[in-house]
Amino acid sequence: MAKKYVYLFEEGKADMKGLLGGKGANLAEMTNIGLPVPPGITVTTEACNDYYAQGRQMPTGLEQEIKEKMVLLEQKIGKKFGDPVNPLLLSIRSGAKFSMPGMMDTILNLGLNDETCEGMIKATGNERFVLDCYRRFIQMFSGVVLDVEHHKFESALDAQKEKRGVHFDTELDAGDLREVLAAYKNVVVRETGKEFPSDPMEQLLLAVQAVFGSWNNQRAIIYRKLNQIPDDLGTAVNIQSMVFGNMGNDCGTGVAFTRNPSTGEKVLYGEYLINAQGEDVVAGIRTPQPISKLQEEMPDIYQQFVDTCNLLEKHYLNMQDIEFTIEKGKLYMLQTRHGKRTAAAAIKIAVDMVGEGLIDKKEAVLRVEAGSLDQLLHRRIDPSAKFDVIAKGLPASPGAACGKVVFDADEAEKLGQAGEKVLLVRTETTPDDIHGIVAAQGILTSRGGMTSHAAVVARGMGKPCVCGCESIKIDYAAKQFKVDSVVINEGDIMSIDGATGQVIMGQVPMIDPQLSDEFRKLLAWTDEIKNMKVRANADTPEDAAKAREFGAEGIGLCRTEHMFMAQDRLPIVQEMILSETTEDREAALAKLLPMQQSDFYGILKAMEGFPVYIRLLDPPLHEFLPNQEELLVEITELKCTNGDKKILKEKEELLRQVKQLHEFNPMLGHRGCRLAVTWPEIYAMQVRAIYQATAQLIKEGVDAKPEVMIPLIIHVNELKMLREQAVSIAEEVQKEQGVTFDIHVGTMIELPRACVTADEIASHADFFSFGTNDLTQTTLGFSRDDAEGKFMSDYINKKILEDNPFVVLDQSGVGRLVKMGTDLGRQANPKLKVGICGEHGGEPTSIGFCQEIGLDYVSCSPYRVPIARLAAAQAAGGESSVSTK
Amino acid sequence: MAKKYVYLFEEGKADMKGLLGGKGANLAEMTNIGLPVPPGITVTTEACNDYYAQGRQMPTGLEQEIKEKMVLLEQKIGKKFGDPVNPLLLSIRSGAKFSMPGMMDTILNLGLNDETCEGMIKATGNERFVLDCYRRFIQMFSGVVLDVEHHKFESALDAQKEKRGVHFDTELDAGDLREVLAAYKNVVVRETGKEFPSDPMEQLLLAVQAVFGSWNNQRAIIYRKLNQIPDDLGTAVNIQSMVFGNMGNDCGTGVAFTRNPSTGEKVLYGEYLINAQGEDVVAGIRTPQPISKLQEEMPDIYQQFVDTCNLLEKHYLNMQDIEFTIEKGKLYMLQTRHGKRTAAAAIKIAVDMVGEGLIDKKEAVLRVEAGSLDQLLHRRIDPSAKFDVIAKGLPASPGAACGKVVFDADEAEKLGQAGEKVLLVRTETTPDDIHGIVAAQGILTSRGGMTSHAAVVARGMGKPCVCGCESIKIDYAAKQFKVDSVVINEGDIMSIDGATGQVIMGQVPMIDPQLSDEFRKLLAWTDEIKNMKVRANADTPEDAAKAREFGAEGIGLCRTEHMFMAQDRLPIVQEMILSETTEDREAALAKLLPMQQSDFYGILKAMEGFPVYIRLLDPPLHEFLPNQEELLVEITELKCTNGDKKILKEKEELLRQVKQLHEFNPMLGHRGCRLAVTWPEIYAMQVRAIYQATAQLIKEGVDAKPEVMIPLIIHVNELKMLREQAVSIAEEVQKEQGVTFDIHVGTMIELPRACVTADEIASHADFFSFGTNDLTQTTLGFSRDDAEGKFMSDYINKKILEDNPFVVLDQSGVGRLVKMGTDLGRQANPKLKVGICGEHGGEPTSIGFCQEIGLDYVSCSPYRVPIARLAAAQAAGGESSVSTK
Repeated sequence: MAKKYVYLFEEGKADMKGLLGGKGANLAEMTNIGLPVPPGITVTTEACNDYYAQGRQMPTGLEQEIKEKMVLLEQKIGKKFGDPVNPLLLSIRSGAKFSMPGMMDTILNLGLNDETCEGMIKATGNERFVLDCYRRFIQMFSGVVLDVEHHKFESALDAQKEKRGVHFDTELDAGDLREVLAAYKNVVVRETGKEFPSDPMEQLLLAVQAVFGSWNNQRAIIYRKLNQIPDDLGTAVNIQSMVFGNMGNDCGTGVAFTRNPSTGEKVLYGEYLINAQGEDVVAGIRTPQPISKLQEEMPDIYQQFVDTCNLLEKHYLNMQDIEFTIEKGKLYMLQTRHGKRTAAAAIKIAVDMVGEGLIDKKEAVLRVEAGSLDQLLHRRIDPSAKFDVIAKGLPASPGAACGKVVFDADEAEKLGQAGEKVLLVRTETTPDDIHGIVAAQGILTSRGGMTSHAAVVARGMGKPCVCGCESIKIDYAAKQFKVDSVVINEGDIMSIDGATGQVIMGQVPMIDPQLSDEFRKLLAWTDEIKNMKVRANADTPEDAAKAREFGAEGIGLCRTEHMFMAQDRLPIVQEMILSETTEDREAALAKLLPMQQSDFYGILKAMEGFPVYIRLLDPPLHEFLPNQEELLVEITELKCTNGDKKILKEKEELLRQVKQLHEFNPMLGHRGCRLAVTWPEIYAMQVRAIYQATAQLIKEGVDAKPEVMIPLIIHVNELKMLREQAVSIAEEVQKEQGVTFDIHVGTMIELPRACVTADEIASHADFFSFGTNDLTQTTLGFSRDDAEGKFMSDYINKKILEDNPFVVLDQSGVGRLVKMGTDLGRQANPKLKVGICGEHGGEPTSIGFCQEIGLDYVSCSPYRVPIARLAAAQAAGGESSVSTK
Repeated sequence: MAKKYVYLFEEGKADMKGLLGGKGANLAEMTNIGLPVPPGITVTTEACNDYYAQGRQMPTGLEQEIKEKMVLLEQKIGKKFGDPVNPLLLSIRSGAKFSMPGMMDTILNLGLNDETCEGMIKATGNERFVLDCYRRFIQMFSGVVLDVEHHKFESALDAQKEKRGVHFDTELDAGDLREVLAAYKNVVVRETGKEFPSDPMEQLLLAVQAVFGSWNNQRAIIYRKLNQIPDDLGTAVNIQSMVFGNMGNDCGTGVAFTRNPSTGEKVLYGEYLINAQGEDVVAGIRTPQPISKLQEEMPDIYQQFVDTCNLLEKHYLNMQDIEFTIEKGKLYMLQTRHGKRTAAAAIKIAVDMVGEGLIDKKEAVLRVEAGSLDQLLHRRIDPSAKFDVIAKGLPASPGAACGKVVFDADEAEKLGQAGEKVLLVRTETTPDDIHGIVAAQGILTSRGGMTSHAAVVARGMGKPCVCGCESIKIDYAAKQFKVDSVVINEGDIMSIDGATGQVIMGQVPMIDPQLSDEFRKLLAWTDEIKNMKVRANADTPEDAAKAREFGAEGIGLCRTEHMFMAQDRLPIVQEMILSETTEDREAALAKLLPMQQSDFYGILKAMEGFPVYIRLLDPPLHEFLPNQEELLVEITELKCTNGDKKILKEKEELLRQVKQLHEFNPMLGHRGCRLAVTWPEIYAMQVRAIYQATAQLIKEGVDAKPEVMIPLIIHVNELKMLREQAVSIAEEVQKEQGVTFDIHVGTMIELPRACVTADEIASHADFFSFGTNDLTQTTLGFSRDDAEGKFMSDYINKKILEDNPFVVLDQSGVGRLVKMGTDLGRQANPKLKVGICGEHGGEPTSIGFCQEIGLDYVSCSPYRVPIARLAAAQAAGGESSVSTK
């Protein structure tokens, strides 16, 4: 049986997104629930995939099937495609399974040629309108299908306006447009060597192929990469009869969300333009009217639209993003889809919908993308701060940002990769600017509304964005913008507040975010659903308190090296490192002991009742010594200038010691438990400090729960030796202090050898904490410091790796070792607690993997704890129960 | 049923080595084949293990069983233990499963006390002899059992000699010895607080426990570590009735090998001393007579001994190391064991024994320790060289060595670890010097014969050794030795030739070894037995030729980076590296192309008919640039001295570029195939050079077989991309040159991720070459450069790791990943060829592992190819077919 490649809208339904694309499936669904949808057909994603499978050829049978279904469409509408009297015109839109706004090319008014154009003029009695449609069609079709650059047509149009001495397209009359049309056709012949195709069916088939082709254009590929959409889904093609929002003042077009996509407030939110075609709203070139104004202008239409919105929201059980057109006083629905929203809106909508009885708590938890919470957890401008607002635009995406001004996406990317914070400033953005938006802290545009490209993309990424800030005048050539007399040059520091639309000179003080009630409610629900514990990586009592506030159930990683870096301690630490004998080293360590004890006292107290996994000293000792190159320069200078001989000698001695500790590959050097293998007295001091602090707290009635974590284990013998030492010190402290406490000693698993011999190691460990940062470095042989600065971007751009493995856990490589280590460890020691404490512990897909392989906990930075809680609940909660989601 | 802890010699046999130890089993065997062995009993190794299991306590029942068996022994000999009239005296010797010469403590004449001493004097009529025995017994027993230091007794003895004004022990008469005995007893009371134990049974039980205890003395532990003998075998204790070689001139003692242990020549080889006890020969204090002299002195005894030797060799089918004693004209056999031998001797003996029909080829191959071949493959002194021989000693262990003179084992170890080459010079060596011998290039002693400690140990290690060089006069205090008027100070450079016994001033030219006919024959047999191919790591036509000469079946690793380092190329390589554009880089690469082509031409030609795996550029590019610190010093100097501004600017620019390429962890940085991901043109040039050289050779009629090897793969996508490039270049070259050749592209597997995703990778690879050096670095997180200089010795000394994992493959960690990679790779691609090319490819136990997991080949340095061939044959050949081996 041959594949069915083409569906009438009536033949589809909402759950056929895989085959018909999201747009096609929703058009079918709306058609079937009786909404006013212009009739059409959908070419399936399978056809697209077969197109690529057959080497970019129309799959066998597709052309025939399109023609057959077009006959049915013509019968339904009562117009014929290519009819010179009353021609059927079509819109051609792509539509993949997942919404990819602005990413794919659209063609309107397909079916126009010299003959049908004249027929349309007669049928509508509106010559200028039809000629303008024809002009737009040639330009659009030529751009998308024939690859003729947009500006070639714009020049022809501009030439006509110049000739007539006018400024706006609308000032051109029908006669002018006929001249423009002739010029356009010449452009096509000049650029392509062929006449513009006049056969409507040829136009249609070429357009279908062009949509297929656009699946793999640069913008689409980047968008998919950014949104982790698989490359092999393909796109459907929606062929729909045209309705016109630009036939006069009883026409219009608009987009609206059923709830506010920024705040989640339950109020219709959108924009429309009278006498305009759909692309005018989305492109952000004309600034549209808020949807509420439609109530005044067209009250009946408005009411009909409100009713339809309510119907759709109840039908889909989700906030909808709807496109509509009004043609001569009649409302048509062109599209509905689940509306993109900010994280704050997603939370409010999900929690409200539970209150409204539409969805349950588990569904609500699944409705909020865990990664998106990040934007709510970022800082905002301190309300008490005084600052100089130089302009105000639309509050297009919440959050505050600060950085150097850049005017170009490439420059933004370049500086961003170099670690600079930048703000991207553009008149408007296009899909070609995506890489600059990714690299920037925030975006400021001088044109476009809340649904403009910049606004939609920035909200999706959780980046602050201010749009349509018309008072700023950008001069790309001079690399500056002006607001009245104020001049801001490239490189100047500026701030924006995407929640208020403010544009601010210089840097402003920012404050930590507050969690909304809905946010707190949603997070509380996660605890009912998830089965993994969420802990935090925190090294100070302050961080510990913050983590607790965000709901952390303990500390999964308390690093002790930062405690060694404090100004007053560094000299003692250096003394310890440079000791030539064990006695000298122990003397220096004895001075550090009370300091470490007070560190642990503070953290254990802040986390009262929760476990605190304390990692013993990890970095190589030379990190605590002066920089070798600086010393070298100082010594050379002293020599050249015949400087103080005594100082020279001291510096030379220090250099000798620094050189002695120098390592070629410090990542793989004398660090972690290796330090304690050589100098057991270092860990002995730390362990004593931990347990003395514990004893002190227990005496004060505080429930302190330390667990000792040994880093960088490769062999069970290391752990055996260091565990024995720790346990015996703990027992000594118990005896000395006359208190008892539980003794737990576990290990980081962060080297491949530890994973493959985890069974041996587990029999001497109370817990495993996978350090997936180091494990990624050694499993891939990637030094993070070197890879991210040098070759990581090549690996991502050339599609060798899907994601930066330091951000998203490499499941098939590193993940396999984590699973192996977990399984082997549990086999040998069924009581073993297992978790991860690398940065992946706060990344949603990685958390999903942790749930899949059955870890007990994840640990992440305090600010990512809410994300981790939500992601853990989602991972435990499984699929959405609402099939149309 | 209670364990049987004690066996009469008659109850054992040769294959009970595990239980009775090697010495005990062989004494039993000799007893049972009717040889004159003094009767005795053996306490089992099980008793020793139970002793440790019970916390260093005599196991229950052992004492009783010893007493019971002693009764049987007394009945057999007709003397009673502790009998004041005609007492039975015993020797107590340790004997583990594997021979550990000089490592364990021995006690002679046990059973003597004041009473039995007088009885013995009456029975033998030789007062002085018996008193001397008693004196030696007290000294030996006190040292071994009571832990009284040797020199305390020596002082007492010296005091007596001084008092009597004599120089030698032998000049002391019976009266003197009675005074010495009294003094000795005082030493014991002073040092231990107790009287010397006079009850013979107490002496015996204490001695047995001391032997057990000696299993874990420092020397024994070091010896086992060095020889990879497990720590849990335990030692047996042999309790044997004494015979005396020191009762007069019709007495004597000696040791002999049934064939020459240095050369393998089939001639009796040994030494004896008239009127001496066994320890006198082995300790090397008196220089003994060659065994052939015995024929003159005691022709009957000699003939009996020769017959016994022949009998034993036929019985054991192996060369024997025999200890004997002659007591009043009667020959006693005290021990036989497989004789230690040099590699050259092992080969000759094995090949000769095949010729004599004693063993088959497979057995012969198993008879030669693969690692020991190393000594035959080292350099020797160039026979045409002129040099200054200052002294001549015994040629105790073949091979030539050169280094700085040191007089102390600790100093030897210290300098050796610092990378210095040293020669250890001692009057004689003892087991306490083992660590110094390990660290030294060679050993020179002024005393002792061919079976002295230094000689035996050095031969075992394959280290050059010259013994008994009596003309050198060592002054430890002054740290120098003199030969006549020549003074050699510590730190002076000296050479020795262990094959000739020559001691030479300064450094001498050395040459490569030649393989003996027997060696060649044995190696040829390996090819009949082994199933893995042995290839070589070689980068030049010269290395390739050497590898071929040693029997390499191809090149498993041809590194290309050394080719970039040549003086004439480095500037072009630097130009390539510092290129800012692809065009500039390609221009520089074009200059390198003909040079690389000629490199490959030479190697492929040298290996005609065999595959050559060429690894594309691997190291990070900054390795080809000037050193950052040197530049920094130069720039600082230029600045301080107001130097040439133009040069300063150039240097600063260069520094900027060097800094830009600087990496924190170059091991994990931008290297290997990552270079080609960023700059595909680099590998493109190399691949083109390879195939152009191939085409050139094919046109010349040479069968060139290159295989392209991509290093540092972590993901199948890297290999896919680079393989496609290589194949398309190969096809271009075929077209351009009008020739055809096979195209093989494979990959190094040297990172854990490659191992765990080997199935994916294998579907795009013709071969896998495990780079176990890098794989060890990443699996363990050990930077070799840093670990070996800093903490590796701590890991070995504290027994965390058994071996240096860069020398011996870490089978349970790295090996597990190698096995996983191999299995996954073969599952996905059954035609995949798999081998290793790390340094482990030439290490015998690692080669055994490769056989076990079914690799196709190993690749190692040319000089280790014979070792690898032998080890591969042994691994394939399995266990020895001769049970007594």
